[in-house]
Amino acid sequence: MKTLQDIGEFGLIKKLAATIPRAGDDCAVLPGGGLLTCDPVIENTHYLPTTPPYRVGWKAMARNLSDIAAMAGQPRYAVVSIGIRPRTPVRYVTDLYRGLRAAAKKFNCEIVGGDTARVRGDQFVVVTLLGHADRPVLRSGARVGDSIFVTGRLGGSFRTGKHLTFTPRIREAQWLARHYRLHAMMDISDGLASDLHRLVESSRVGVEIFAAKIPGRLPGALTDGEDFELLFTVGPRDAAQLQKKFYEIGRVIRRPIVLLDGQPLPAKGYDHFLTR
Amino acid sequence: MKTLQDIGEFGLIKKLAATIPRAGDDCAVLPGGGLLTCDPVIENTHYLPTTPPYRVGWKAMARNLSDIAAMAGQPRYAVVSIGIRPRTPVRYVTDLYRGLRAAAKKFNCEIVGGDTARVRGDQFVVVTLLGHADRPVLRSGARVGDSIFVTGRLGGSFRTGKHLTFTPRIREAQWLARHYRLHAMMDISDGLASDLHRLVESSRVGVEIFAAKIPGRLPGALTDGEDFELLFTVGPRDAAQLQKKFYEIGRVIRRPIVLLDGQPLPAKGYDHFLTR
Repeated sequence: MKTLQDIGEFGLIKKLAATIPRAGDDCAVLPGGGLLTCDPVIENTHYLPTTPPYRVGWKAMARNLSDIAAMAGQPRYAVVSIGIRPRTPVRYVTDLYRGLRAAAKKFNCEIVGGDTARVRGDQFVVVTLLGHADRPVLRSGARVGDSIFVTGRLGGSFRTGKHLTFTPRIREAQWLARHYRLHAMMDISDGLASDLHRLVESSRVGVEIFAAKIPGRLPGALTDGEDFELLFTVGPRDAAQLQKKFYEIGRVIRRPIVLLDGQPLPAKGYDHFLTR
Repeated sequence: MKTLQDIGEFGLIKKLAATIPRAGDDCAVLPGGGLLTCDPVIENTHYLPTTPPYRVGWKAMARNLSDIAAMAGQPRYAVVSIGIRPRTPVRYVTDLYRGLRAAAKKFNCEIVGGDTARVRGDQFVVVTLLGHADRPVLRSGARVGDSIFVTGRLGGSFRTGKHLTFTPRIREAQWLARHYRLHAMMDISDGLASDLHRLVESSRVGVEIFAAKIPGRLPGALTDGEDFELLFTVGPRDAAQLQKKFYEIGRVIRRPIVLLDGQPLPAKGYDHFLTR
């Protein structure tokens, strides 16, 4: 019998996505421009028992805010579901909520409800966000000849603790959407290599990137994941203006492949289910 | 240091609710009538490792649909977050999704996205629903002199397996809201006794119920929980018309107390964190 370990997270998502017509972007896009997204953070997967609870809350909220940013959206309402062991100190949960609220408040998002339930083992926090974008930017809009940008340094997020303290790129995304014509955008959560493969698949194009232009040390910048920077593509005219603000790492090509310095780059990013 | 076990789920919710202005109903009510709710189901808390995955999916969706029903709302969109062990068969997950989809489809709700992540221990499914109600029915509207109704039999939900197969009372709630003036409504998820205490607290009234009128065997009908029937109150005129369709179990009184056959009834329902 095939297990998740055999087919991996992307294999599973592909299997399920066939039945979920709106899947495939960082958020589901609802009629009228509504954006809906939910992502879990799980103890011993996304954080450790020793991680300060404020930081767990911050990450749980910021991760989802990053998905709204990836659509150039504005977050509005959040609900929170937590699974928690009965012996957990009350203080842990109130600190976790402080972190959730701090991240939400920074982007004018309101926590409107949620639920708590008991777990025996690893604890978890699932945040769901409802947001809005007049013109959501999808992964599928990259065009041949586009320049590919990232908004910040990549790699080492676990080592440096950035994955617990990062600022989701909501403001950058809104600014970009206001002043430029974004063709495609997504956040880099599973590593640049893996996420570029998703972009390529969604947009039915290829990409060519250059090691010297990637802001961060290789191979971590390609595969560590949890960067929560944005990856976006724009046409040549916009690209010329954006080169001083963000990192231009390559361009969109016709051939359906991901090339690093001319060599095929495998999608060896983070996969929850594959054995590492 | 105080733990969750010391203050219980309701103690925790009270503590957190102080910071969440829209909390306190089955769903958060958004401007314009949007309804947002999310509830987890967790292995070994809400279902067993041996529970058929289709039923796990059904329950995870139906539980949340029941929250939308409790507001007399219409569910629209769902996102699903699952935490799953890497050695789980792919078939388990696709069957779980079949259950999710079957429950959603029955009430014209669309699954629009979600996320999967790895857990080491107990698995979980968190469904978030976005719905709508032109006039959401709150818990806070019960008036002195109202009759109290429940929509179906209570108790024994775990023993009989009802908690895995129940039909959320979406249609009943919508019919009631269309033809009658519902003053207050909620779903019975933690047991009638416990949920009556919440109604009393939200509406700042009291209630008096009668053992002989409760559809189900005592004490289970008061305390088992996971009934997912609706509890609602209406004025005397509507009550007279509804007595043949639903179960009238008592009435709303001024004194802020829950009485069963004239005796105070403690809130001994299901609490996730209190030691049982």
